[in-house]
Amino acid sequence: MARSAIRLGELAAEFGCELVGDPQVTVSRVATLSDAHSGGLSFFVNKAYRDQLRSTSAAAVLLRPADAGDCPVNALLVEDPYLAFAKIAGLLHPQPDLVAGTHASAVISPSATIAANVQLSAHSTIGDDVTIEADVFVGPGVVIGPRCRIGKASRLLANVTIVQDAEIGERCIIHPGAVIGSDGFGNAQSDKGWVKVPQVGRVLIGNDVEIGANSTIDRGALDDTVIEDGVRLDNMVHLAHNVRIGQHSALAAQNGIAGSTTIGKRCMFGGQVAIDGHLIICDDVIVGGKSALTKDVKEPGYYVGTFSAEKDKEWKRKVARFRRLESLVSRVRVLEKKADDE
Amino acid sequence: MARSAIRLGELAAEFGCELVGDPQVTVSRVATLSDAHSGGLSFFVNKAYRDQLRSTSAAAVLLRPADAGDCPVNALLVEDPYLAFAKIAGLLHPQPDLVAGTHASAVISPSATIAANVQLSAHSTIGDDVTIEADVFVGPGVVIGPRCRIGKASRLLANVTIVQDAEIGERCIIHPGAVIGSDGFGNAQSDKGWVKVPQVGRVLIGNDVEIGANSTIDRGALDDTVIEDGVRLDNMVHLAHNVRIGQHSALAAQNGIAGSTTIGKRCMFGGQVAIDGHLIICDDVIVGGKSALTKDVKEPGYYVGTFSAEKDKEWKRKVARFRRLESLVSRVRVLEKKADDE
Amino acid sequence: MARSAIRLGELAAEFGCELVGDPQVTVSRVATLSDAHSGGLSFFVNKAYRDQLRSTSAAAVLLRPADAGDCPVNALLVEDPYLAFAKIAGLLHPQPDLVAGTHASAVISPSATIAANVQLSAHSTIGDDVTIEADVFVGPGVVIGPRCRIGKASRLLANVTIVQDAEIGERCIIHPGAVIGSDGFGNAQSDKGWVKVPQVGRVLIGNDVEIGANSTIDRGALDDTVIEDGVRLDNMVHLAHNVRIGQHSALAAQNGIAGSTTIGKRCMFGGQVAIDGHLIICDDVIVGGKSALTKDVKEPGYYVGTFSAEKDKEWKRKVARFRRLESLVSRVRVLEKKADDE
Repeated sequence: MARSAIRLGELAAEFGCELVGDPQVTVSRVATLSDAHSGGLSFFVNKAYRDQLRSTSAAAVLLRPADAGDCPVNALLVEDPYLAFAKIAGLLHPQPDLVAGTHASAVISPSATIAANVQLSAHSTIGDDVTIEADVFVGPGVVIGPRCRIGKASRLLANVTIVQDAEIGERCIIHPGAVIGSDGFGNAQSDKGWVKVPQVGRVLIGNDVEIGANSTIDRGALDDTVIEDGVRLDNMVHLAHNVRIGQHSALAAQNGIAGSTTIGKRCMFGGQVAIDGHLIICDDVIVGGKSALTKDVKEPGYYVGTFSAEKDKEWKRKVARFRRLESLVSRVRVLEKKADDE
Repeated sequence: MARSAIRLGELAAEFGCELVGDPQVTVSRVATLSDAHSGGLSFFVNKAYRDQLRSTSAAAVLLRPADAGDCPVNALLVEDPYLAFAKIAGLLHPQPDLVAGTHASAVISPSATIAANVQLSAHSTIGDDVTIEADVFVGPGVVIGPRCRIGKASRLLANVTIVQDAEIGERCIIHPGAVIGSDGFGNAQSDKGWVKVPQVGRVLIGNDVEIGANSTIDRGALDDTVIEDGVRLDNMVHLAHNVRIGQHSALAAQNGIAGSTTIGKRCMFGGQVAIDGHLIICDDVIVGGKSALTKDVKEPGYYVGTFSAEKDKEWKRKVARFRRLESLVSRVRVLEKKADDE
Repeated sequence: MARSAIRLGELAAEFGCELVGDPQVTVSRVATLSDAHSGGLSFFVNKAYRDQLRSTSAAAVLLRPADAGDCPVNALLVEDPYLAFAKIAGLLHPQPDLVAGTHASAVISPSATIAANVQLSAHSTIGDDVTIEADVFVGPGVVIGPRCRIGKASRLLANVTIVQDAEIGERCIIHPGAVIGSDGFGNAQSDKGWVKVPQVGRVLIGNDVEIGANSTIDRGALDDTVIEDGVRLDNMVHLAHNVRIGQHSALAAQNGIAGSTTIGKRCMFGGQVAIDGHLIICDDVIVGGKSALTKDVKEPGYYVGTFSAEKDKEWKRKVARFRRLESLVSRVRVLEKKADDE
């Protein structure tokens, strides 16, 4: 599938672009407008970079028809240049090829089932009753615990831990250090301290899901934790037990979703968002970075709840005013009473 | 200790429940009310699930005497159904048995002391002067650095790193990817940049402590970082150097506790809480998720400091009002002056 | 470079201190004022510890000339006692010595170039076209992926993953579980879901950089992610693709910096700070813990944007007032109109 160079004529035909330029020119890599020299394909969508567009020496640029006039080189005109760019970049820079086989240092349970064309890298450990389907990449230091299934063509990068009782779909990418299938945080209070509540659910992950480095996804307490197809999780995202994430939702880095919360389809959350437990967030909800959600969300739209930092002194003055709001309200009440008495 | 099935009569006697039903019926697993078919034991505490209780086909349900009327199946009546559930679940679904022995790929320093009945898994590394007590589980890829001690029956799951100079008590569970005993963040400013301050303290962890996946606990700068008995840390919790956490406190995911802060006993913090350094938080403090604590807390109780996200437009209007509070106060002052002048 | 004991006379000369006491006395370790018995060197800067200074039995104390009167033992007088302490502690407690050599269990690509005096620990994995310079420590379980370079005398502690296409400078310390060079979070929206955008940039890390446990640094999308010399990152810091951090900046734990943001030199951010993408933060900016930055910062200084948690009831009352600010403003407007009409 990897391509070392592609002619612009071919790209235009394959990706529905209108080519303004030489169809015989080839591109071999993607690059920024300012860095894309011979053979480089770039794209233009953000008008802040218009000057860079005007002076680019890229082999070709993907851009909207309306911007064509500013392009000094071969232009591939298309309605969504970034999407076209993503797809073409995927051809020019594909995931590295598998080197099928089992490294001598890999340790594999006799009860594991490993399909053909699987790469088990150095120092990987495959536990009891694990099933690994075809074309899977298991990176160095990866540990897959008991009763897990890794779907076709998925890639578990270095030092990932799939703890136990997890099913991962096809074509997923799990980035280094991620932990999937760990115990949920279940504790019952007693007069002698916390009693651990065994976590007997699973984690079910759909197809085409990507999970960022050092993220953690706990398995369910009784029912399962569920990540549907096409979900994108950035680095250090935490999903507690019994969370459900709907198709094609994308959570930026350091999100924390508390237990039993259900998130709809096509949601997009900025970084460091926190969502309380046992909530239901509907489809198509966008949440601004660092916001907290503490109630169900029943209407699609953009939600936010943060203050932007400002100079210390100014902020402190505002916070002091905020803390005395009650007294300001009383003062207004007094004025209103006086006005009424007149 | 694991039990494949237990008669209800036995459970009632052992856990102080009143049985309304057949003492000969057995339960073999725990499950939700809606999913607990033959052999399944469930519990009911949250009234939101009353409909599920009324239609459950569980073998038996743990619930409060007051709710007995809604239970269509065998009922185990008890004041704290969730606690009883946790204990019984622990019998039916115990931690997996140890398979004592050292995997051929484990690497062990000659100066380490390993007790009997310890499991050292594949690709584990045990450093100099480490002591591992009986019945300890060391998972695949675990690294234990110099001068650490792991207490009896503790479990270090896959890819955990115990860096150095850490003592871990008995029956602790350390989840995958956690790092314990790393350098504290100690830096002195010089005109040539930061000078690293060597961290010469230890981490001391009590008994029955559970530490979540990908959490990090730094060792002390000079004195020790201390986690007392029975503490529960969720995933991705960060404890800086010289933090102290009192017995039976529980910190939810992504908490960050800055250096030298002392947290009392039985505290409970929601997710993404941040606590400043050098603070003292007394016993029995509950902090709402995503809140920041910047001052000592001397009184038990529930503390919170967050805004819940709302629709972008409404939030922006409120923030704009907040930013102009100073001017509103001035306007009220003018009105007060006018009123006084009359 | 390590020293088992140093005479006070020598320390005074080497670090520009004025010695009030016996130059023949030696110190062999650093400790707190209250714990520094024979041979212990301590320091005093925080007046909260003055009582401990007065009763210390340290062999010697580093402190400011103005505080000399309270020191009952040998005193090393210096303008910046903490900085002198850091330097002396570095002599008494240096990084552990390398044990050069390759552990039998290490797995090394034939295309890797490993300099002399490198320690490759148990279960480490060195990928294709990797270059490791002299005096580097590679800890147990470390994975270094293709096309990475590790500079002279750097230390990668246990279970670190250097994913691919990363250059790490000299004398860096990467703490356990950190992931460097992972894919940035690049996704293009299509009507069939997200299309992954290949990440073809690198991570470039300067000299004398320290990166905390379980931190993640993504490589660039097209251009590179860049961390300049002397930067300090605490645990669980997330740097997205194409972030740039200027020399000697220090970010406390759980910071999250979104894509393409540039942070200046000598900045200092408290814990859990979040910075939006595509921002430019100038030199010498200090940000209070848990604050969010959503705009460029063009002026050095201290920025903050958080509320400290308080008792639940009081907080809720204030938030309710905040939510009704619009109506308060209307009431003031009515009063103003009435006053004008009189």
